[in-house]
Amino acid sequence: MIIQLDSHISAPQLSALEEALNKIEYKTNRVTTQYADYIIGVGNKPFDIRSIGILPGVRDIHRVSDAYKLVSKKWRVEDTRISLGDGLEIGTGSFSIMAGPCSIESAAQVEETIAHLKAAGVRIMRGGVYKPRSSPYAFRGLGMEGLKLWHEKAREAGIKIITEVMMVEQIEPMLEYVDIFQVGARNSQNFNLLDALGQVDRPVLLKRGISGTIEELLQAAEYIFSNGNERIMLCERGIRSYEGAYRNTMDINAIAMLKAKTHLPVIADPSHGIGLRQFVDKIALASVMAGADGVIMEVHGQPEKAFSDGQQTLSYQEANRLYSRLRQAFELREQF
Amino acid sequence: MIIQLDSHISAPQLSALEEALNKIEYKTNRVTTQYADYIIGVGNKPFDIRSIGILPGVRDIHRVSDAYKLVSKKWRVEDTRISLGDGLEIGTGSFSIMAGPCSIESAAQVEETIAHLKAAGVRIMRGGVYKPRSSPYAFRGLGMEGLKLWHEKAREAGIKIITEVMMVEQIEPMLEYVDIFQVGARNSQNFNLLDALGQVDRPVLLKRGISGTIEELLQAAEYIFSNGNERIMLCERGIRSYEGAYRNTMDINAIAMLKAKTHLPVIADPSHGIGLRQFVDKIALASVMAGADGVIMEVHGQPEKAFSDGQQTLSYQEANRLYSRLRQAFELREQF
Amino acid sequence: MIIQLDSHISAPQLSALEEALNKIEYKTNRVTTQYADYIIGVGNKPFDIRSIGILPGVRDIHRVSDAYKLVSKKWRVEDTRISLGDGLEIGTGSFSIMAGPCSIESAAQVEETIAHLKAAGVRIMRGGVYKPRSSPYAFRGLGMEGLKLWHEKAREAGIKIITEVMMVEQIEPMLEYVDIFQVGARNSQNFNLLDALGQVDRPVLLKRGISGTIEELLQAAEYIFSNGNERIMLCERGIRSYEGAYRNTMDINAIAMLKAKTHLPVIADPSHGIGLRQFVDKIALASVMAGADGVIMEVHGQPEKAFSDGQQTLSYQEANRLYSRLRQAFELREQF
Amino acid sequence: MIIQLDSHISAPQLSALEEALNKIEYKTNRVTTQYADYIIGVGNKPFDIRSIGILPGVRDIHRVSDAYKLVSKKWRVEDTRISLGDGLEIGTGSFSIMAGPCSIESAAQVEETIAHLKAAGVRIMRGGVYKPRSSPYAFRGLGMEGLKLWHEKAREAGIKIITEVMMVEQIEPMLEYVDIFQVGARNSQNFNLLDALGQVDRPVLLKRGISGTIEELLQAAEYIFSNGNERIMLCERGIRSYEGAYRNTMDINAIAMLKAKTHLPVIADPSHGIGLRQFVDKIALASVMAGADGVIMEVHGQPEKAFSDGQQTLSYQEANRLYSRLRQAFELREQF
Repeated sequence: MIIQLDSHISAPQLSALEEALNKIEYKTNRVTTQYADYIIGVGNKPFDIRSIGILPGVRDIHRVSDAYKLVSKKWRVEDTRISLGDGLEIGTGSFSIMAGPCSIESAAQVEETIAHLKAAGVRIMRGGVYKPRSSPYAFRGLGMEGLKLWHEKAREAGIKIITEVMMVEQIEPMLEYVDIFQVGARNSQNFNLLDALGQVDRPVLLKRGISGTIEELLQAAEYIFSNGNERIMLCERGIRSYEGAYRNTMDINAIAMLKAKTHLPVIADPSHGIGLRQFVDKIALASVMAGADGVIMEVHGQPEKAFSDGQQTLSYQEANRLYSRLRQAFELREQF
Repeated sequence: MIIQLDSHISAPQLSALEEALNKIEYKTNRVTTQYADYIIGVGNKPFDIRSIGILPGVRDIHRVSDAYKLVSKKWRVEDTRISLGDGLEIGTGSFSIMAGPCSIESAAQVEETIAHLKAAGVRIMRGGVYKPRSSPYAFRGLGMEGLKLWHEKAREAGIKIITEVMMVEQIEPMLEYVDIFQVGARNSQNFNLLDALGQVDRPVLLKRGISGTIEELLQAAEYIFSNGNERIMLCERGIRSYEGAYRNTMDINAIAMLKAKTHLPVIADPSHGIGLRQFVDKIALASVMAGADGVIMEVHGQPEKAFSDGQQTLSYQEANRLYSRLRQAFELREQF
Repeated sequence: MIIQLDSHISAPQLSALEEALNKIEYKTNRVTTQYADYIIGVGNKPFDIRSIGILPGVRDIHRVSDAYKLVSKKWRVEDTRISLGDGLEIGTGSFSIMAGPCSIESAAQVEETIAHLKAAGVRIMRGGVYKPRSSPYAFRGLGMEGLKLWHEKAREAGIKIITEVMMVEQIEPMLEYVDIFQVGARNSQNFNLLDALGQVDRPVLLKRGISGTIEELLQAAEYIFSNGNERIMLCERGIRSYEGAYRNTMDINAIAMLKAKTHLPVIADPSHGIGLRQFVDKIALASVMAGADGVIMEVHGQPEKAFSDGQQTLSYQEANRLYSRLRQAFELREQF
Repeated sequence: MIIQLDSHISAPQLSALEEALNKIEYKTNRVTTQYADYIIGVGNKPFDIRSIGILPGVRDIHRVSDAYKLVSKKWRVEDTRISLGDGLEIGTGSFSIMAGPCSIESAAQVEETIAHLKAAGVRIMRGGVYKPRSSPYAFRGLGMEGLKLWHEKAREAGIKIITEVMMVEQIEPMLEYVDIFQVGARNSQNFNLLDALGQVDRPVLLKRGISGTIEELLQAAEYIFSNGNERIMLCERGIRSYEGAYRNTMDINAIAMLKAKTHLPVIADPSHGIGLRQFVDKIALASVMAGADGVIMEVHGQPEKAFSDGQQTLSYQEANRLYSRLRQAFELREQF
């Protein structure tokens, strides 16, 4: 059950409300986000919804039978749009492209990428400065130094930054340099990290776990929302299957289903989704038709020399062709 | 190695050729299809391809390192198009729609479906008369009787028939009533059935196994081709994954990859692919963008009353909307 | 619902019974096995079980809510033991070892294997004469000729034969040479084959599909049982998972669960289960602890020269050591 | 390549060594553990191993072609045994039992559990004070307060504590109260946490990811080892498969394979492995036969009232029966 509170609810009214909920055996969770105050009631006893709805201080009340509540479309029917400032918005009705290298490698690389994005009308740049790597002996990213040099050039160019955060301690130092925090697949159930990202004033792109279910992804988003941050995007990036012909198995079904289950924007990651450069375009275009609100993809001036993920990274020329096709496909979809 | 033979190769020339192959330790398989004679050589010793290519009776010779040979695009670069007669062709460059009920239920149902398809310009009707069912106590189809009544009405209307064959003994009685034989997911490695379908003069639509790999699907097609039948379509129909939110997990990646690996047409089955009516349209449209040459989908006048698979079956109205969108998406794709 | 009929039920009594079942909206399936006559009622209306149980000709009646009925332990609490003649029985309370090569290759190989088995006190020999192979160009077995030479030597030695049947037409010619028919993983949902094997007087070992569920395996067994053959063993042989370190992923859980769900014997196939010779012994021993009633395993005089599956086949020496350990582990388990 | 350094290597000798490695294009990683100093060289150029081995300050040098180095059995042939003090050791040659509730709930529960363990001769108690939960609204553990009360009673009783740590910040406060840190499946690729646990003086039990590969698990262990902590145990706790009949699919194969690939102890978690109380005993016993060096299992005075995981938790009586069987099975295995 989700109860939205009046902004001027009094302390005695709040106590009375919580008492009423306890009486019908609902555990209460107080949630305060950027936009509103809520009480989330968790229980399974039948009760008369009007008996609660009528109490002073209650703006509205909804039953939500899903395990996830605040991110469910059963509660909030209208899709969430996330503003990045400068007129840039992500969500139903527009199509967002985020592109850039797997890893931030050098100032020259950042400049070159920004030039490419500007020319192509792409306004959000991806790139890793903290890299989760299977082996401890692999390149793990340039860290804060890389982020700062990137930020300086991106700000000048009016380009927004999305980058992965791997641990709670990194959030604060990164905060002023980041426009969107990305949570990677390996951290999709790092609940402490989700808690902490629920308390910062930045949008979060949350990737599905390597073998995460739809349900788990939505509950992970619920962690962020219930800690106070409503600005969440979900990202399908391929799952682990028995099929060894691809790096991952892009689960196009998840995009279609997530758009029906939640009001949050859904982003496709075709680069990791199939993990093979040759097929990134087809998977990206398929994602548009399945309902994605945007893509996040890997591009590099010389993919074969990239520090990481070269085999799934597009060249600028390939990327330009794909941006154009994505926009055409989106336009067609919007007419449907 | 694939050697195409001259049509007028002499017996002594053939013997000499086989001897030469044995000398370099290649096992030979003689293949005669509707269109040509081949020898498939299987071995892994290095050799000078010219020493074989120069022999009398050899039209051409190719090395093919894949485990599948005749279905590989490494050998035949040009995509296969399959003619069904009456100007109807399946393959790269056109988009084929096959639609109809899961099960053939009655003459009235067949008539109604045909009327729907005619009005929509759909020329191939799907329907099951032999149904593979998990439980022995479930409806298993109307059998030959159902096929005959269907065929009578379809022929009148100029509609082609695709239907599933489950065992070798069914092939001969079904032959004159069927335009395309379908091999279901559960029989995708029923090698005796594949052998037998290689020997009949009908196109075959071969579905990927429930957890079949790309490689296994192509090798299953090789069974049909190497028995003499070049007219094969491959079908992605969803795989089994850990995700329980859908009936199957449509593997959009397979469509993209199959189009790169083989010259055979690739058909998408969005109905089984996700198994939920609400999402069939998005999955079908995604399949077009991934490169599918057509779709096979379930439609029914009253899905909720269908004998089987109602939960993934579109109504006529939903289907009409989807046909139109599929054609628009295909048109856009062809411009890319 | 399962109704066992009196052996002397009269035709009018039977009609009355079927009518009563139709009245409560249960579809009836008549089943006649080697041992008894049954009516399987499929429906989901609540009813008073006594109103049916009281009818003349009814020996007993049970509700079985599983989708599978006759193979369920909810109906038949006592475990099934299958006699192979000569005092040889398979099922709870004894431990059966079936061993032999993947493929029958020659008379000499058969003789050598039999000598090994005799010395080790193993009374059932496995071997393939019809081989399901991914590639059409691979060795597909010696066929009937191989079976006949095998049978001649096995009969002399008092060794029983288990071998795979791949299609309905093979059953009749194979029948007199076979003691147990094996259905392979690729045919575990070849329903026509299951139907036919329900009508022959030989035990059947039914392997789980490559990605078959517990439920599907039990329903496949129900096909055989409901066609008249109660003598069925189930076999866990590894499933397909994302893990590429093994050929298959032996699902030890399935053994434990099958023993709880069904009264049929459960056999483990550690050779295919993990597919790596080095680990066959540990997986076999683990299967004993999980509750298996026996193992089927690949042995060969020179595994590295076997026509097929050499990488998962034990030498005679390795096998002898394992037989002894299996018997000790079984003995310990029986004390628990 | 792993180079163990002389403990009295001089700075100039070290520089010379690193220079020599750079010259043959090996990236060097300096590793200092509780027990020794190493240089891990990562590269793939062929070179003469003697040219490095001969350098002053090198104690020995090994080539290790696996992606993981220090945890590989190719380098360290002898199995690692981990001492917990008080004569308690974990590893090849002994069998360790760790048992206790899913969550620490109260002082009374802790006392009761300790009494049960003492009576049964079990010396390590498991229990969660920080609980990873899919839903933000579920019980997340008693935290430090719970750990402290537990520790007080455990120390008195001479019982060791194993408990899960979820984030870097928790390590330091937990350190003095914990005998073994557990890393849960959801954190198995939380690389920052692994880094940090490599720097503390406590053994770590590292669980396999929910769909983690053998390779990923070993590389995760390499993170801990290469940060300085050699005392690591690996834990198989069931993987995610398509089979919905169990909570997880215990991968018995992993136990057998890990024992062959690494010198680290391997522990089985049958409670999570199958997730159903009725089968925990069989899965635990199977794990012994597959080669496990111990089990970690959930027990509770009243499983049906446990705060979490009750459906997979044994009662004291069930647990006692299982401890005895495990010891018998281990004894038999040691005779093999």
